[in-house]
Amino acid sequence: MAKQKKTPRPKAQTPKGFRDYFGTDVTDREAMLQTIAGVYHRYGFDALESSAVETVEALGKFLPDVDRPNDGVFAWQDEDEGWLALRYDLTAPLARVYAQHRNDLPLPYRRYAMGPVWRNEKPGPGRFRQFYQCDADTVGAASVAADAEICAMLADTLEAVGIPRGDYIVRVNNRKVLNGVLEVMGLDEGETREAVLRTIDKFDKVGEAGVRELLGKGRLDASGAYIDGVGLSADQAEPVVAFLLAKQTVVEQLSGKAMESGLSFEEKWNSLFASFAADGPQPGEPSVTAEDVRRWNFEILKHLSELVSDSAVGLEGVAELEQMAELLNAQGYGPDRIIVDPSVVRGLGYYTGPVFEAELTFEILDDKGRKRQFGSVAGGGRYDDLVKRFTGQAVPATGISIGVDRLLAALREKGRIASSERGPVVVTVMDRDRMADYQQMVAELRGAGIRAEVYLGNPKNFGNQLKYADKRGSPVAVIEGADEKAKGVVQIKDLILGAKIAQSASLEEWKERPSQYEVPRADLVARVRAILESSEDLSA
Amino acid sequence: MAKQKKTPRPKAQTPKGFRDYFGTDVTDREAMLQTIAGVYHRYGFDALESSAVETVEALGKFLPDVDRPNDGVFAWQDEDEGWLALRYDLTAPLARVYAQHRNDLPLPYRRYAMGPVWRNEKPGPGRFRQFYQCDADTVGAASVAADAEICAMLADTLEAVGIPRGDYIVRVNNRKVLNGVLEVMGLDEGETREAVLRTIDKFDKVGEAGVRELLGKGRLDASGAYIDGVGLSADQAEPVVAFLLAKQTVVEQLSGKAMESGLSFEEKWNSLFASFAADGPQPGEPSVTAEDVRRWNFEILKHLSELVSDSAVGLEGVAELEQMAELLNAQGYGPDRIIVDPSVVRGLGYYTGPVFEAELTFEILDDKGRKRQFGSVAGGGRYDDLVKRFTGQAVPATGISIGVDRLLAALREKGRIASSERGPVVVTVMDRDRMADYQQMVAELRGAGIRAEVYLGNPKNFGNQLKYADKRGSPVAVIEGADEKAKGVVQIKDLILGAKIAQSASLEEWKERPSQYEVPRADLVARVRAILESSEDLSA
Repeated sequence: MAKQKKTPRPKAQTPKGFRDYFGTDVTDREAMLQTIAGVYHRYGFDALESSAVETVEALGKFLPDVDRPNDGVFAWQDEDEGWLALRYDLTAPLARVYAQHRNDLPLPYRRYAMGPVWRNEKPGPGRFRQFYQCDADTVGAASVAADAEICAMLADTLEAVGIPRGDYIVRVNNRKVLNGVLEVMGLDEGETREAVLRTIDKFDKVGEAGVRELLGKGRLDASGAYIDGVGLSADQAEPVVAFLLAKQTVVEQLSGKAMESGLSFEEKWNSLFASFAADGPQPGEPSVTAEDVRRWNFEILKHLSELVSDSAVGLEGVAELEQMAELLNAQGYGPDRIIVDPSVVRGLGYYTGPVFEAELTFEILDDKGRKRQFGSVAGGGRYDDLVKRFTGQAVPATGISIGVDRLLAALREKGRIASSERGPVVVTVMDRDRMADYQQMVAELRGAGIRAEVYLGNPKNFGNQLKYADKRGSPVAVIEGADEKAKGVVQIKDLILGAKIAQSASLEEWKERPSQYEVPRADLVARVRAILESSEDLSA
Repeated sequence: MAKQKKTPRPKAQTPKGFRDYFGTDVTDREAMLQTIAGVYHRYGFDALESSAVETVEALGKFLPDVDRPNDGVFAWQDEDEGWLALRYDLTAPLARVYAQHRNDLPLPYRRYAMGPVWRNEKPGPGRFRQFYQCDADTVGAASVAADAEICAMLADTLEAVGIPRGDYIVRVNNRKVLNGVLEVMGLDEGETREAVLRTIDKFDKVGEAGVRELLGKGRLDASGAYIDGVGLSADQAEPVVAFLLAKQTVVEQLSGKAMESGLSFEEKWNSLFASFAADGPQPGEPSVTAEDVRRWNFEILKHLSELVSDSAVGLEGVAELEQMAELLNAQGYGPDRIIVDPSVVRGLGYYTGPVFEAELTFEILDDKGRKRQFGSVAGGGRYDDLVKRFTGQAVPATGISIGVDRLLAALREKGRIASSERGPVVVTVMDRDRMADYQQMVAELRGAGIRAEVYLGNPKNFGNQLKYADKRGSPVAVIEGADEKAKGVVQIKDLILGAKIAQSASLEEWKERPSQYEVPRADLVARVRAILESSEDLSA
């Protein structure tokens, strides 16, 4: 018989930018998503799970920050179906689903969706090519009442998963106000408008001075490269700068001392909302009242309407913001949770009206040990043109997308999710011919709702069995050798207590409490349960 | 300005073989998977979610029924990573994960996984290119105790999701017995062995006579095509036929009258297990005792060991089957739930030892209105060579995969899952300027855990609002016009009662119970809750 050619062994690795999730990384996310789904469901939203694979033409070229069509997606050519691709978000598929099934779906159609999306981008640290999104959208409702509902639901969702009031803020803006500013500048369309929009998008990064330079002659990059400017005069650029600074101008005028600290304006602004936390502002933290913020909101809207007073669309945007603020206040979503904030720009994608963003305002330490605020965990807005691509008819739509991994990280940061779960009770194998006895024990334990397993590795080395129990985070190991069997007892090893004793072996108090003892076989389940309960967390 | 070129509208369609899941199709599956995860977790299995995208070389060529490597998968070429592909099952990725992370994972490693997999096959009716799997596997345990555990867990899982005892049976076989049969025939390797294996795989389809023909000269297909045979003489073929018929031979010998009915042998065999249902055998159904089946099991094993008495590996397989049966019996998993059954072949893929299959034995009506048994919903077995591909070291592994869609269909068939969910309470909009009032109402209802929404479409046509509530399956509509507002009341429309009255309008009893009435605004939540509770299913 011919000897088979040896093929080289395949590499045991995920492709770059992909990863595996283990244990609690899976179950914690699942639990969080189920809580979110519960809130969405209570708001009348229905579940939708669309196909992970779409035709390239159905996905369109709406991927943010990518200029060429189909760039940024994983695509391949199918024999019969032409080019197919993995979805890059949950919004483009929703537009396709709604267009395809519109005759069967209610109008308005509220739906939520959660699942992985894929981006064909260069992977980097913390930047993955597959990640989870969790979206809720309302299709077919033109009224800003739909946008207000999404914002209220977002606030409820954050509180439901464990972000307390005062630790988050939902910020609302309206793309029409920005359009009004551009209209006032005479930039209805064309290349200059696009260049101005790209500059606005950089405000977060380059600040006021940087934006002024980029709107004018240009600017030396941090890397030393010279970036060409839009070429506007200082006067021409002024409305854009005034718009971007609207909130800062008003708040600094009105808030006075509260804003004095070493933080950037945005961080100072966010830190104000710590006043609304259940435990109030901490010593040294600025303090404002809901009434202060309501007054700022009012003044900001007034300032904006002055900036766009010559633009119908701009004034419409301001009016919509006012309407949303009224609706939200009436439902009890005051400025301690949701505020108007003209500095929210949210990329330059497909948004046509209100845009929203949820930020977590508590501080964490970054990689370099510096304090910074946690930042954005969700964003969305109104996009009235996506369904039209398919049907030719405009269908209003608005929605939100939660960054699942970031929100989960935030909950861990706040200690809202136990970072480790308890392992199973391990029944060790002293005598491999009595496997049936050991299986019987775990069957009894499981029957009582206790997570339990028999050691299934090679039982020869008993030390390995205890090492295994340790690696599994087991609370209890059960031992039944021939002697115990003959006497009708089992040994119970309390591994939680054992670990405590090991940590503080010098303390006399521990020495009196044995961490391993004999109990009648018939009492196995009751005694194991007692240990689990005494450590206040019955694993079931 | 240049007029933009019109591009044709994209088609609003999933690619062929892909589909969208709506509402309860998503949430019912999710609930079932969570129940399954609960059982797996209690057995000590940890969650794993591996990347949906793998390198083609890591996936290997183990896709069942596909001869060419990489055929049957969706693959594309990545700039940096070479060929990538969507996973086609959850087992191949587990082997990669284990090889990659083996230094950090416990040994044995018990893991469960659930999620979509993708197959690049021709789509057909009921045959999709993306579907869910739900797997549990133990890596690194060579003992058949691990296989027995998987089978016991499978039985527990089926009962946990709602398949009662007597409606399912887990059948266990061992690939080594088959290898022993082939050894006895002198077929250790080579083309004839492969041809015999392919023939065995067709037993379900062509029956005893068909297998005899295919092992011999060949056979006229149903389509009229002539299929070449393996070319064995009748004597040479006999051990294979005896193996395939081992169960039938023994059971027919021993069971006598119980097997007399018009069904095929396999259907008669399965229907016996209805005797173990809580309500016992129905009139006309055959009746057996657990003792009968235990005796058959014993005799079948004896018969098998005679068939392979000249083969060490064959006898090892029989011994493993005996060991599993003992372990399972000792844990209380008797032949009413798990049985030895040499007719389980489970394809010809990578299995090396025990193989298992779960069948649902209750009857349903097929497309043509004929009774048939529901059939297989899960399968698996031992595959000791998958990790070796990566590391060169053999790592024993065994596991099970549940066909999620089929199991969900079975639960629906048995009425274990309500096929429709209740829609939200709909607060209608009589006066669009008072949207804040209506939002306030839904906020109160949601606060009480009641699913509720404001109508967000164009409120002009009130009839459309009620049609919407109807389409949503709403239990209650709330109406507050200017008159009601002035009087401090709201109208409550009981849509459940309304539907009943509409169905039986002639009955006097309904006429006395109005389905719409006025209640004080302050009583809104309490009265809505009363309606929901009286229909015995508070939607929360």
